Amino acid sequence: MTSDFSRCRRIWSNVRLATLDPTVAAPYGLLENHALGIRDGIIAAIAPAGAVESAAADAQIIDGGGALLTPGLIDSHTHLVYGGHRADEFERRLQGASYQEIAKAGGGILATVRATRALSEAQLVAQARPRLLALLEEGVTTVEIKSGYGLTLADELKMLRAARQLAREFPVRIRTTLLAAHVVPPEFACNPDDWVELICSDLIPRVAGEGLAEAVDVFCEQIAFNPAQTERMFTAARDRGLGIKIHAEQLSPTGGAALAARFGAWSADHLECLDEAGVQALRQAGTVAALLPGAYYFLRETRKPPVELLRRCRVPMALATDLNPGTSPLASLRLMMNLGCVLFGLTPEEALLGVSRHAARALGLYDSLGMLAVGRSADMLLWDLDHPAQLAGQVGTPRPLQRIFAGEITHATTA
Amino acid sequence: MTSDFSRCRRIWSNVRLATLDPTVAAPYGLLENHALGIRDGIIAAIAPAGAVESAAADAQIIDGGGALLTPGLIDSHTHLVYGGHRADEFERRLQGASYQEIAKAGGGILATVRATRALSEAQLVAQARPRLLALLEEGVTTVEIKSGYGLTLADELKMLRAARQLAREFPVRIRTTLLAAHVVPPEFACNPDDWVELICSDLIPRVAGEGLAEAVDVFCEQIAFNPAQTERMFTAARDRGLGIKIHAEQLSPTGGAALAARFGAWSADHLECLDEAGVQALRQAGTVAALLPGAYYFLRETRKPPVELLRRCRVPMALATDLNPGTSPLASLRLMMNLGCVLFGLTPEEALLGVSRHAARALGLYDSLGMLAVGRSADMLLWDLDHPAQLAGQVGTPRPLQRIFAGEITHATTA
Ligand SMILES: [Zn+2]
Ligand SMILES: [Zn+2]
Repeated sequence: MTSDFSRCRRIWSNVRLATLDPTVAAPYGLLENHALGIRDGIIAAIAPAGAVESAAADAQIIDGGGALLTPGLIDSHTHLVYGGHRADEFERRLQGASYQEIAKAGGGILATVRATRALSEAQLVAQARPRLLALLEEGVTTVEIKSGYGLTLADELKMLRAARQLAREFPVRIRTTLLAAHVVPPEFACNPDDWVELICSDLIPRVAGEGLAEAVDVFCEQIAFNPAQTERMFTAARDRGLGIKIHAEQLSPTGGAALAARFGAWSADHLECLDEAGVQALRQAGTVAALLPGAYYFLRETRKPPVELLRRCRVPMALATDLNPGTSPLASLRLMMNLGCVLFGLTPEEALLGVSRHAARALGLYDSLGMLAVGRSADMLLWDLDHPAQLAGQVGTPRPLQRIFAGEITHATTA
Repeated sequence: MTSDFSRCRRIWSNVRLATLDPTVAAPYGLLENHALGIRDGIIAAIAPAGAVESAAADAQIIDGGGALLTPGLIDSHTHLVYGGHRADEFERRLQGASYQEIAKAGGGILATVRATRALSEAQLVAQARPRLLALLEEGVTTVEIKSGYGLTLADELKMLRAARQLAREFPVRIRTTLLAAHVVPPEFACNPDDWVELICSDLIPRVAGEGLAEAVDVFCEQIAFNPAQTERMFTAARDRGLGIKIHAEQLSPTGGAALAARFGAWSADHLECLDEAGVQALRQAGTVAALLPGAYYFLRETRKPPVELLRRCRVPMALATDLNPGTSPLASLRLMMNLGCVLFGLTPEEALLGVSRHAARALGLYDSLGMLAVGRSADMLLWDLDHPAQLAGQVGTPRPLQRIFAGEITHATTA
């Protein structure tokens, strides 16, 4: 921490800081009656409010009126670029149809693949915009977006480009992940290894070369890709310097999380069936356990991720929307915080860490995002809140008074 | 239905209507490629789009571009006027504290009573505004608001006046309900019948005389008011011409729903423990069963209301937020629709009916609200939606393209 405000261009004074900085001992890293200054979009000074007196004459000083400043929220796992919707399936299921009947009628993930392939990049962007906006309005400043509904070389690239385009249109940090290994494409049903080969030899090099994704993700599950295939793709990703993520242990214990940990994965996601060995593997590798309570709720799963064990082993837990049309059509990270507490037993502080500091780590951004500390990006939210636990304890309210992205106020309301 | 557009002042053409009108045979009462005209805030004509040719020269014709028009959403059960919050309790509970420990530390409903009493009417309005706004942004056009955290004559009136004030500030229909019988006030712990007497002889006549509420509600439960007390208050309410509602069968089967039905109640709410006799009583009286999945979710209840039985007996089911600081701090009616489907097994059409036609009935407004039909108020929403099931199948998106309150467009965005 530094208290030198003399070089800060903009200073929030008279604020309470939920820094989430582990070096600040109080719950939520709370600092009462403080000031925070920024320069070039980066947090440059944090100190008790009185220190603002050292500010330069031309610095802009914003009186926070005692409001609460938190890091911007980070949604570290979404599939928010896709075509169409699956509400008709949802309806048929509630009218009594079985999963098999729905699959026979052309439903399921392949319905989304067909709809996604049928759209142009611009049309994909148009359909994704409202979903992204819903997140931004809540206070999200960083969003991860995966491919995985294209499942051809061209359509996977199209999805990643659509995600990049969204980053140009909105004041948000978007990190993209190649999830060509989401399911086996129908064209490769009889020879899935050929698709894996194409991913390793063609897609990953291309995506890395064009800078279209920061990471590679694999759905490692009996119904998707096995550990041997997963390992091949992780090796190709590592060789190209891409981050590694995995959808693992959702439906069955496959050992995928431990496999990903061996590759130094940023995160292992879902984890309902994670066993103790898997938890230890994550702990040793410093891999984040990303919990996705939306899908757990929406699918009415009964097996929860081993939260108590993860907590005891100090594995950082992220919370994300998993926003997707089939199993988590829920465009609200605040809802995930509440679901994480109510359904998984997280504390409100753990829920907030799961969408800030730990979510940053799940995106390979631990050094630059996710807490209020000098040197981190000034992605911040100003809230008319008495207690930071309200962020997880309530849904729908409040909206941020100010949303600050890289030091710029992108949205402001009066209380 | 009428196809006479000649007297309509404003006409939406080229729209798909989810009328929810029981006389329209299709699911959702869907009418493709129709037009809807209004006059004096009331729906005056509905007909196939071609009929618009008969419109007057000075009528405003809005091209809906094939978008979906639905009734405005109705939240028929809220406690959205209150002081303070209870996130600290939520946090302590997740940190392992028992309900008893929290009650001993001054938590629970009486914490909200203390906070509410401490605020002025204007302060109550200020704290309620963001919660109401969150509902309005989703497309809610009618909200019921209960008193019940004042528990003195003056504080109950203050709560009702705050609710009335919100109706003056926002384009929304607010119906208020006197819930002085929410819990026994601490001052009457030893003589609860005296509080009941005060409600009957003083509060109800005063509220009816000043037009401060449309209905009276009682929390009929072992921890609140017994059936004999409930009956006294319902008698007083009926004598003054007020509607009757009840919080019943949430924690135990008390027979409260059947009692309310005998009084011709508009609705019986919660109903997790409702038995078959109760269902029959509601059916015979035409009383709405108002289901509150937010509290069920938030309290992690395991006993669900008897949806299958209610459906078979054709008891109209409403869905509402029950928005309150302790057991449902969830300011989203769309979330309730999703919870109603996922947790209670409602179909998306039942969920939509539960926040429109049946919700109107739960507020004694069946004749004027809740469906797109000639003679009903033009409270409507225009959605960029392919399928009406998306309204229950998704959370967070979409927001209405247009929100129309009594025929006036109060909010509009471009797609
Ligand atoms: Zn996913
Ligand atoms: Zn209630």
